[in-house]
Amino acid sequence: MEALKTMDLNALLEKNRAFTSLGKVANYIPELDKANPNAFGVCIMDLEGNEYCAGECNEKFTIQSISKIVTLMLALLDNGKEYVFSKVGMEPSGDPFNSIRKLETSSRKKPYNPMINAGAIAVSSMIKGDDGRDKFNRLLDFFRKIMEDDSIDVNYKIYIGESETGNRNRSMGYFLKSEGIIKGEVEEALDVYFKQCSIEVTAKNIAKLGLFLARNGVTSTGEQVVPYKIIRIIKTLMFTCGMYDKSGEFAVKVGLPSKSGVGGGIVSVVPGKLGIGIYAPALDEKGNSVAGTKFLEDFAEMFDFRVL
Amino acid sequence: MEALKTMDLNALLEKNRAFTSLGKVANYIPELDKANPNAFGVCIMDLEGNEYCAGECNEKFTIQSISKIVTLMLALLDNGKEYVFSKVGMEPSGDPFNSIRKLETSSRKKPYNPMINAGAIAVSSMIKGDDGRDKFNRLLDFFRKIMEDDSIDVNYKIYIGESETGNRNRSMGYFLKSEGIIKGEVEEALDVYFKQCSIEVTAKNIAKLGLFLARNGVTSTGEQVVPYKIIRIIKTLMFTCGMYDKSGEFAVKVGLPSKSGVGGGIVSVVPGKLGIGIYAPALDEKGNSVAGTKFLEDFAEMFDFRVL
Amino acid sequence: MEALKTMDLNALLEKNRAFTSLGKVANYIPELDKANPNAFGVCIMDLEGNEYCAGECNEKFTIQSISKIVTLMLALLDNGKEYVFSKVGMEPSGDPFNSIRKLETSSRKKPYNPMINAGAIAVSSMIKGDDGRDKFNRLLDFFRKIMEDDSIDVNYKIYIGESETGNRNRSMGYFLKSEGIIKGEVEEALDVYFKQCSIEVTAKNIAKLGLFLARNGVTSTGEQVVPYKIIRIIKTLMFTCGMYDKSGEFAVKVGLPSKSGVGGGIVSVVPGKLGIGIYAPALDEKGNSVAGTKFLEDFAEMFDFRVL
Amino acid sequence: MEALKTMDLNALLEKNRAFTSLGKVANYIPELDKANPNAFGVCIMDLEGNEYCAGECNEKFTIQSISKIVTLMLALLDNGKEYVFSKVGMEPSGDPFNSIRKLETSSRKKPYNPMINAGAIAVSSMIKGDDGRDKFNRLLDFFRKIMEDDSIDVNYKIYIGESETGNRNRSMGYFLKSEGIIKGEVEEALDVYFKQCSIEVTAKNIAKLGLFLARNGVTSTGEQVVPYKIIRIIKTLMFTCGMYDKSGEFAVKVGLPSKSGVGGGIVSVVPGKLGIGIYAPALDEKGNSVAGTKFLEDFAEMFDFRVL
Repeated sequence: MEALKTMDLNALLEKNRAFTSLGKVANYIPELDKANPNAFGVCIMDLEGNEYCAGECNEKFTIQSISKIVTLMLALLDNGKEYVFSKVGMEPSGDPFNSIRKLETSSRKKPYNPMINAGAIAVSSMIKGDDGRDKFNRLLDFFRKIMEDDSIDVNYKIYIGESETGNRNRSMGYFLKSEGIIKGEVEEALDVYFKQCSIEVTAKNIAKLGLFLARNGVTSTGEQVVPYKIIRIIKTLMFTCGMYDKSGEFAVKVGLPSKSGVGGGIVSVVPGKLGIGIYAPALDEKGNSVAGTKFLEDFAEMFDFRVL
Repeated sequence: MEALKTMDLNALLEKNRAFTSLGKVANYIPELDKANPNAFGVCIMDLEGNEYCAGECNEKFTIQSISKIVTLMLALLDNGKEYVFSKVGMEPSGDPFNSIRKLETSSRKKPYNPMINAGAIAVSSMIKGDDGRDKFNRLLDFFRKIMEDDSIDVNYKIYIGESETGNRNRSMGYFLKSEGIIKGEVEEALDVYFKQCSIEVTAKNIAKLGLFLARNGVTSTGEQVVPYKIIRIIKTLMFTCGMYDKSGEFAVKVGLPSKSGVGGGIVSVVPGKLGIGIYAPALDEKGNSVAGTKFLEDFAEMFDFRVL
Repeated sequence: MEALKTMDLNALLEKNRAFTSLGKVANYIPELDKANPNAFGVCIMDLEGNEYCAGECNEKFTIQSISKIVTLMLALLDNGKEYVFSKVGMEPSGDPFNSIRKLETSSRKKPYNPMINAGAIAVSSMIKGDDGRDKFNRLLDFFRKIMEDDSIDVNYKIYIGESETGNRNRSMGYFLKSEGIIKGEVEEALDVYFKQCSIEVTAKNIAKLGLFLARNGVTSTGEQVVPYKIIRIIKTLMFTCGMYDKSGEFAVKVGLPSKSGVGGGIVSVVPGKLGIGIYAPALDEKGNSVAGTKFLEDFAEMFDFRVL
Repeated sequence: MEALKTMDLNALLEKNRAFTSLGKVANYIPELDKANPNAFGVCIMDLEGNEYCAGECNEKFTIQSISKIVTLMLALLDNGKEYVFSKVGMEPSGDPFNSIRKLETSSRKKPYNPMINAGAIAVSSMIKGDDGRDKFNRLLDFFRKIMEDDSIDVNYKIYIGESETGNRNRSMGYFLKSEGIIKGEVEEALDVYFKQCSIEVTAKNIAKLGLFLARNGVTSTGEQVVPYKIIRIIKTLMFTCGMYDKSGEFAVKVGLPSKSGVGGGIVSVVPGKLGIGIYAPALDEKGNSVAGTKFLEDFAEMFDFRVL
């Protein structure tokens, strides 16, 4: 992308770093609380192989909810879209990510979408494998392949914390089991889920994930790892449900398929053009990186990269 | 009670037996499904030691939700009312017994009352003891003391069934844990809960429980096992919340503190006068014994036993 | 009641007057806001014709939600209980008085009970008459007859305020209309409702209402104005739903059928014995008179007047 | 668009006409019920001025909820986006179009988005004018200008029907008034809303509206009637919330910003390329044209017109 070459990425990042002071680092696990609230890193990769990075783009953080889109890709490859979407819907819910009420009040009797926790846990239960260990190993390999980084691994301190504090997610898991959405063991599904959330990445890793989506499922070696028909589902769900219950506002203000995590990461895609990885762990009240969101507003506006 | 001596209990029972055909036996556990849908037994005990029984009043069934009032008595003895009601409310909820939504949407952040499953599980977690086994053994002894029958025990087939199909209750348990309502292990609390629900009784046992409440906490030996101040809490909660989300209508039509269970039992109290035990496993859509409810309407009307 | 003669009512009232400082006077209408937050009056009447009053028991205030039980009596006389309860339920809802959500989410498709606003508006729409004016006049005459005071009338300043600020009630009215619960004109039903809420009374008038219920529908002249079968419905609904979403706690702590209003009034009944009228306009967060509730706890405890 | 010239639009339409038998014509107003359930018309217009029509594309129907996007454009022009979105959100709600519960349970205290009825009524209340008549006339002129057809007008039989059966909408209106979302008279806002829903159009008119959006707010005369910044908000809200509580699934399957109405119409936009107008009044259970949706799936797939 020629356009990007003229951009002063450092200036744009520093301009938005001030917004980190408006958010709060996630602290439901003590380990997460150690993040530097003013950290801010951005990495942008284009299809020609150029890379533009600024700020703390090599700092490690846990991928958290961004993992939901990767797991969904493997679950779709493993089970087909008919099966997956017979158990999980495609509708934005308008509720917080950890909400359980619609499982009960809705006539759908399935989680509204794979981006809220209930839906994501259901999706994690669909990963194939001989046992829980095998299932997660297949998933971890899939993360490494897509992000093209074999060193990617779980942060086990965070994982232990997720599992110990994960009773709301456990509650959802057993609800899903009682409704027949989860077929196997609830604890096994939760274990996959807690581990995938605890995978440690950098903004660069996340940009690579964005690039993979921008290239419609092809890695830099040219391998079509995920078919286009799955990628477009992923991008659409990111657009309609990727930013928790602020997805609608984000779609209006930024207009790019994106997914955030409470670790402070955001992956954003300019289809056919760019993958963007962001790290800024100070979160707004919905769980989205404040500075990351503000940066994307500026960036999308500057180059008119919106898809609509 | 002189009045009762002239009553033809058999005729009143047989008149209402027809209503058993309007209900359905609980079948969420295969073992429960074996109950005879037309079974109907009534046992009435007065303070003078008279006993009036008709129909299948020696048939065994599981106590199910009727156990909630017994466990609540022990939890109040073990912890005091301030502690217990800091974790569980006293308000009717208007929702079905297995509803989870108000745990999320209410600002109270505690189960509405001890008669819905979420509240009852919280109460079961408060029973004191060295470990799960000890806790349940203390509780079982308490059941035996109050019902004055040392042969009362758990139906282990039903218990296994409750535990295996109990994922909705498990979901509630972990939700309560995540909100700090349950202090110890969720599975231990659930185990106590599933076991107490699986205690096997007859209509006679249930009548004895009613008599214990009618006598304000005194057994036939004259021992004050539970103080009056606790008994009146129990009777009031039975009146406002004892018949699932049909409690209000039942209060208007029958007007006696009562508690039903999906095993087909109902305990009913004429304060200062009678204890009533009923067994008729065909249930209405809310989970209450159809014939049992109809019998109580007739019975309360006939003698004007209503408390209001 | 001999027992009452020994009681120092003034002392009991003054002991509880301190609680007025813990509440707030209703202010959704400017006119209501003029009430003295420390006002506190109690009037108790027994079946023998004795009257015990203390504090500001002749101060005027608007009856507000206490009117719901009077209107319900006339609606039951006008339409029969089958019709009335085909449109309004008998279940406590666990929701605030002005809540609308259960009208939508419940499968019942009718207001949970006649004590929440939605149910009360439905009930007001059932009063018979040639037109709105005639309907309200019949209702006002009924209030006067039961309270045995022909001077009782509407406070028109408050009525105007109720109507002007009553858009939440108006919203409920049109919802009820769309569900077929209200048959006639919504504005006419609302007009009856706003006027009945604006009827001005004293603690003495309220005690007379309580006495009427304690005497099972008979006035001091011996006339049976309302049959016993209706009175017992009223007392039961007061017990299960009379104190907004604090009814369950109130039933445990006081144990007497009662109904409160945001004007600061409470009517309480000791069946077969006493009618109690209270005025103390400082309200708790649910809308109940703080000092009034505390007084009733003491009073019921002192004489063990609880019905359960 | 050269590509379209080779398409057999008639064949594609007839292939999907069978789906009309799977839906039902709206019948909440008798007048709507007169529509031919098998009617199906499609009109496609490109930026070069070509027009491709098939089936009943000149049949008249009421625009219904499609009007929401036109009114929103004028409200944004009249009031600016800061004001409009201070009163109405941008989030998909996951609830049916006529749902009221989230107005109560959400902490937002404003309608989730302008595409559900509550939000749309709030938006209609923002149209400027001297009085109700003037407000609607300004709005009607705006419809005519955008659709470039001065003969467009209200179907007054339908309008009367909307107003007479509109008590659920009236209920929402008064709720919004009580929350301060609607500033003026509720009935005036509702009158504008009922009239805009009753505007009569053809598939051709709707295609013109789509073309206007595809051209980013410019009419065929070259006039920029609505600025691009507003158009992109409209397109985004159509994408995330345009198809009632099936918007998420539609976004995955079709992937084009679209808005449906219960009159059977759908407007769809291929940004920068095409405007599409559809009429097929047999609706699915969510209120979307069945055959229209199926046609759009085929059409978007055939030319890979998806925006994601």
